[in-house]
Amino acid sequence: MTNDWDICYFSDGGHSLTVLDQTLLPTEERYVELRSAAEVADAIARLVVRGAPLIGIAAAMGLCVAVANGEDFEEARRTIGAARPTAVNLSWALERMARANSEFRNLNFELRVEQLREEALKIKDEDAETCHKIGQFGRGLINDGMGVLTHCNAGHLATGHYGTALAPIYAAAEEGKQFRVYADETRPLLQGARLTAYELVKNGIDTTLICDNMAASLMAAGKIDIVFVGCDRVAANGDTANKIGTLGVAVLAKHFGVPFYVCGPQSTFDSRCATGADIVIEQRRSEEITTMHYAKPMAPTGVNTYNPSFDVTPHELITGYITENGIDTTK
Amino acid sequence: MTNDWDICYFSDGGHSLTVLDQTLLPTEERYVELRSAAEVADAIARLVVRGAPLIGIAAAMGLCVAVANGEDFEEARRTIGAARPTAVNLSWALERMARANSEFRNLNFELRVEQLREEALKIKDEDAETCHKIGQFGRGLINDGMGVLTHCNAGHLATGHYGTALAPIYAAAEEGKQFRVYADETRPLLQGARLTAYELVKNGIDTTLICDNMAASLMAAGKIDIVFVGCDRVAANGDTANKIGTLGVAVLAKHFGVPFYVCGPQSTFDSRCATGADIVIEQRRSEEITTMHYAKPMAPTGVNTYNPSFDVTPHELITGYITENGIDTTK
Repeated sequence: MTNDWDICYFSDGGHSLTVLDQTLLPTEERYVELRSAAEVADAIARLVVRGAPLIGIAAAMGLCVAVANGEDFEEARRTIGAARPTAVNLSWALERMARANSEFRNLNFELRVEQLREEALKIKDEDAETCHKIGQFGRGLINDGMGVLTHCNAGHLATGHYGTALAPIYAAAEEGKQFRVYADETRPLLQGARLTAYELVKNGIDTTLICDNMAASLMAAGKIDIVFVGCDRVAANGDTANKIGTLGVAVLAKHFGVPFYVCGPQSTFDSRCATGADIVIEQRRSEEITTMHYAKPMAPTGVNTYNPSFDVTPHELITGYITENGIDTTK
Repeated sequence: MTNDWDICYFSDGGHSLTVLDQTLLPTEERYVELRSAAEVADAIARLVVRGAPLIGIAAAMGLCVAVANGEDFEEARRTIGAARPTAVNLSWALERMARANSEFRNLNFELRVEQLREEALKIKDEDAETCHKIGQFGRGLINDGMGVLTHCNAGHLATGHYGTALAPIYAAAEEGKQFRVYADETRPLLQGARLTAYELVKNGIDTTLICDNMAASLMAAGKIDIVFVGCDRVAANGDTANKIGTLGVAVLAKHFGVPFYVCGPQSTFDSRCATGADIVIEQRRSEEITTMHYAKPMAPTGVNTYNPSFDVTPHELITGYITENGIDTTK
């Protein structure tokens, strides 16, 4: 991946967090400044900032900004922590910040804020390093001439750098391998069309966009050789919560004999969740289905909707898990 | 189904075919008048008129209008016949009109046109009758409290009346059964959101709209008890071409143990096609994926697309076929 652009950084001497507004992609690259816990929580809830690892990074950095601007640490932590329920990285990052805050509680205000900023930037740097390791481990699974399918966006736009599901793709491309990526558009919010297709095309990857319901047709035609997806939370038994639609892709992959890999940092593995049944799934607004991104209503008034943000893929449908520690196929 | 509204009828003394422009639903009910074979073919190609049975009806009626307005029968037949390649009803209806035209070739112009109109209206009436029979046969499969899933639109808006996949639903509702219908929105052209949800809500059916990629999540939660879909062409071995995404739903239904029924008139069964591999699948424009119905582009310029209009569901994934002759579970 040649692209080193930073989409989440401190500004105004650490009193502001600047993030790329991902709701405006692919037509506009606009950055917004977040100055309070409420603004950070709102940006996470509205998917201005999204992707499990980046949510953790933005939450930690946003917490520093809130504290630097005079907000109470615990109150700011609660506000940001309530933004979205499913991604474990959010609570993981906030807990890590709380440990740092406790460790440095005897320092004066300026020094404590400085230590918090360092801890948040460490989370970001470590995530970038994790992404690179996932890429190194995963790239060997991609060979010349393959068709690679991915769902949603678990790329640069979702992480500190390089992505999780897209890391093997970027790493294989850097080795000069020739292959084609198919990106599910990922309704309702079109992260595949707007974000994955955007960053892959920007990085020179041969990318074909499909509607979610076309993956079966491609697999039946023998055009998909491997699937990489990200994850928002992995239970102890390997059941994986990820963007709605992931479960369907996993069932199709199983039916058509296509290997299906889940990619993510070790911090996404939640040992406190025994199985997928213990993972809370966020339900989102009807308008995302009925009008979002549309010039005119696309469904009749009065219709009900069912709009879960995630689904759970049982571990038996998952070929392996790729983390910074390697590829685990034992679950 | 309480709604008797006619969406495809002769006007101007048979010199015009008036059809509901389905591209404008659900926000606007606008009718357009078609006066030539070229206009009829364009309306079918642009999905102003769509749904396999209704395509056959509109083609036959449109052919009458073209001939009444002075066009050559064979030339008009070729023009309309080339509008879309996959639905067998189109060529079936035009062949039937050609037989009538041959039978009445010795009549004078006015009488011949009158006979052609009668034949076209017979196709429409027979389709309405077929829909009712599918409803009578299929309604017994629906019980109180069930969740019923359908994909695309194979309802009133796709047929002479009452629908094919929606016929069991309307018939069961008329019996007073209480159940819930889930409608896949059906990307890229959203026939599920715009048309199925529209006509079901209009007819008082409890309807929940989902994105295509949410069906797996519903099935995993045990909320889907039966699936009904329509068909554009069924091969001799039972392999079924239908709206893109049908194959994926069938694989999911198999995985989760949900019965999956294909509903359609006998005229959709094409004995000249041995298997699904012999069915030509139409590929459609990129813009349907990248911008259609959107205020702004939803994918980056330069991205490739894969946009088949249909896929083929192998017969082993299909529980049964419901036609005007009954339910066939032997294939």
